[in-house]
Amino acid sequence: MKPIEAYVKSIPDFPEPGIIFRDVTSVLQDADGLRLAVDLMQEKLAGIEFDLIVGPESRGFIFGVPIAYNLHKPFIPIRKKGKLPRETVSIQYDLEYGTAELEIHRDAIQKGQRVVIIDDLMATGGTNEAMISLIEGLGGIVVKTVFLMELAGLKGRDRLQGYDVDSVLIYPGK
Amino acid sequence: MKPIEAYVKSIPDFPEPGIIFRDVTSVLQDADGLRLAVDLMQEKLAGIEFDLIVGPESRGFIFGVPIAYNLHKPFIPIRKKGKLPRETVSIQYDLEYGTAELEIHRDAIQKGQRVVIIDDLMATGGTNEAMISLIEGLGGIVVKTVFLMELAGLKGRDRLQGYDVDSVLIYPGK
Repeated sequence: MKPIEAYVKSIPDFPEPGIIFRDVTSVLQDADGLRLAVDLMQEKLAGIEFDLIVGPESRGFIFGVPIAYNLHKPFIPIRKKGKLPRETVSIQYDLEYGTAELEIHRDAIQKGQRVVIIDDLMATGGTNEAMISLIEGLGGIVVKTVFLMELAGLKGRDRLQGYDVDSVLIYPGK
Repeated sequence: MKPIEAYVKSIPDFPEPGIIFRDVTSVLQDADGLRLAVDLMQEKLAGIEFDLIVGPESRGFIFGVPIAYNLHKPFIPIRKKGKLPRETVSIQYDLEYGTAELEIHRDAIQKGQRVVIIDDLMATGGTNEAMISLIEGLGGIVVKTVFLMELAGLKGRDRLQGYDVDSVLIYPGK
């Protein structure tokens, strides 16, 4: 079997000039790549005690749900504003251009529950930081975040100090 | 274990008055519910020969990926315009208000490949019809669509005549 990095296509200048886009869809497009990505992310949770998995719309759903299925845990989606039908709490955070707003169901996490965050890619860490605020605001404890890929040049880990962050693939650039 | 319908919360008047929203997040929020939903959808594929699974952003990712993982198949996302990084083909289709545009990577399906579509909910069938057009446009053969839930009162099946459509849960209303 090939190593996981062999399944990742890199697309220069997407979505804008100067950015190298690391394409998760090329991993999923191969049955072996999909299985390997899920398995390697799941291995990062070995020995971690936790109650539930949280993942953000929409690429966080891709890996969060199969890992939740395999480990028999609930999956809690965090979505863009207005998509969740029941009572929510929300957070606004800054993007490079403008702001974004994310929501979680208020009843999704009970006080003291141990939470794992799953997402495909860490860039600046801004989305992860916002998710941690939402989870902690409900009384949850973020015990680990697992990414498939990390763009280390964007220094997302600097924003997530004090948290257990792990990535299957670390790219040095942006 | 409870039946699958016991995990679905129904929210009246969301996203607008007169609509009963069938909430898939309440199924995922319970580890047993999540597992049962995936297993029951996957059972609908017993005996079906196919090459890959396609699911639409973003709730189609929720069930499509774990089933692809379990059955060792590729997962191909269909996304809203501008989200996929490589060469795409796209389709515009009508919604109740306005239009939407969906895209698929051009290299995602080879001529003659047998395709299963997985999604959480069939309402009017419009999204499914658009997805079928994209898949057939690339030479794929849609051998089955599986939904977790179907709102039979919206008559989505009328738009999908001649296709094998199956749903785990069928609600008579809208």
